Amino acid sequence: MQVIADPSGFRAAATSAGKPLVLVPTMGALHEGHRALIRKARELAGPGGTVAVSIFVNPIQFDRANDLAAYPKPLEADLVACEAEGADLVFTPEAGAMYHPDRSVTVTESLLSRNLCGATRPGHFDGVCTVVLKLFLLSGADSAVFGEKDFQQLAVIRRMVRDLDVLVEIIGHPTIREDDGLAMSSRNVRLLPEHRADAPRIRRSLIAARDLLGGGERPSAALLAAARAGIEDSPFARIDYLELVDAENLQPVERVERPAVLATAVFYGEVRLIDHITLRP
Amino acid sequence: MQVIADPSGFRAAATSAGKPLVLVPTMGALHEGHRALIRKARELAGPGGTVAVSIFVNPIQFDRANDLAAYPKPLEADLVACEAEGADLVFTPEAGAMYHPDRSVTVTESLLSRNLCGATRPGHFDGVCTVVLKLFLLSGADSAVFGEKDFQQLAVIRRMVRDLDVLVEIIGHPTIREDDGLAMSSRNVRLLPEHRADAPRIRRSLIAARDLLGGGERPSAALLAAARAGIEDSPFARIDYLELVDAENLQPVERVERPAVLATAVFYGEVRLIDHITLRP
Repeated sequence: MQVIADPSGFRAAATSAGKPLVLVPTMGALHEGHRALIRKARELAGPGGTVAVSIFVNPIQFDRANDLAAYPKPLEADLVACEAEGADLVFTPEAGAMYHPDRSVTVTESLLSRNLCGATRPGHFDGVCTVVLKLFLLSGADSAVFGEKDFQQLAVIRRMVRDLDVLVEIIGHPTIREDDGLAMSSRNVRLLPEHRADAPRIRRSLIAARDLLGGGERPSAALLAAARAGIEDSPFARIDYLELVDAENLQPVERVERPAVLATAVFYGEVRLIDHITLRP
Repeated sequence: MQVIADPSGFRAAATSAGKPLVLVPTMGALHEGHRALIRKARELAGPGGTVAVSIFVNPIQFDRANDLAAYPKPLEADLVACEAEGADLVFTPEAGAMYHPDRSVTVTESLLSRNLCGATRPGHFDGVCTVVLKLFLLSGADSAVFGEKDFQQLAVIRRMVRDLDVLVEIIGHPTIREDDGLAMSSRNVRLLPEHRADAPRIRRSLIAARDLLGGGERPSAALLAAARAGIEDSPFARIDYLELVDAENLQPVERVERPAVLATAVFYGEVRLIDHITLRP
């Protein structure tokens, strides 16, 4: 396994590596969810292909300086995980090598990124699009694997690939969860013990809304109220957003008549967790 | 020579074509200036390589609907010119095939595009960056040739390539001029005869300023005044902008101490012409 920090060195290694090249873009702090993405990439690349993992805490997608500063960076453990899951190339650039001091070009998305995480994190998805496009173009990836946990991110990236004619196949991988249902996240390790114990209510509350729909309740207001009650019953949880949107264009819906997504972001102290559930009428 | 309107057909043809592939992005209405770009591309591609010309009047870079509607589209003559100059592939997409009705992703440039043409044409360079990136990614071009006449466009595209890690070499080609010094442009054919006769004063006025600098006059105000007087002496010309900027970052300068560019856009009736001259201290 080669570990490369220099962008042009990474490009050179990726260009001469066996094809197909499957990329797994991450911000490090790899947990079982990421490991599942790398395993999926290994399966897709096959024995002759190449699995490239990028580990880069992308500063331009953080809207809060304290969130960026607090983001864990356990590089040594990450490299052990990459190696164990069969990665061939790991790209670990410094921010200064990815972004020129006078950089002035950004990829912007103006529809799917408007609400949900985009509403409360201005510029976040533009930062995501910009870095992901750079990673696609540096690696020349044939395909790239992303977790479905970040479902809005996945939708925005698919849209970018479509609208800019990027020649890469985007593969979504189901959310990996702890035994108690909490979606795996690099931020989970920052939760206080009492917050960690409380956090599975997020998933339970989304399931409660889905069960209500299963019982025939289609108006969004009722489904949102059920999920909200479940989360707000906590002494710790503070809802950042809770929205019910169309599964395709991510715009809010009044009733569930087509596939929709109930999505939430919840603060426990300074730690912000996201989760979602797909609702089918 | 293959003429292809379908983006995926163009991608397939470009992918299987001989390398290197040299792209010449145009909006059609090809004149001697474009033909010089295609000849340059032919020279760069060599006998085994491929010259691809795109002909696409990109709607999202027009800020004025009448300018878009009036843009000439002499496709048959353009194809004759492409064939005569040795093009192998010509890409002639419809706007509807390049842009989805709900497209939401744009490439934006926020520094070099702020003044000059950018100040009076909001969104213009974002439209240019977006379409040029799409053309790079569809064609997989190894290099691309652009006219230096659109020097701000060339600077913005170079910046995009740098900031987004696009794997393409950008080649600038000197401005081609009519015998009387007027820069060749697809818009020249729309000039009234008396405007066409008057328009060479643009170039003469820029040269007058350069001569003044040659005589030791370095303050921008004096150089701008000289050029302005030369243009405004016309009964027809109306200055859109006249600016003296640093050659590298395109920001206005007070004095010419490093290479700078004196650039102007001038309206004759509804027709807007641009030209510039490089000033070296």
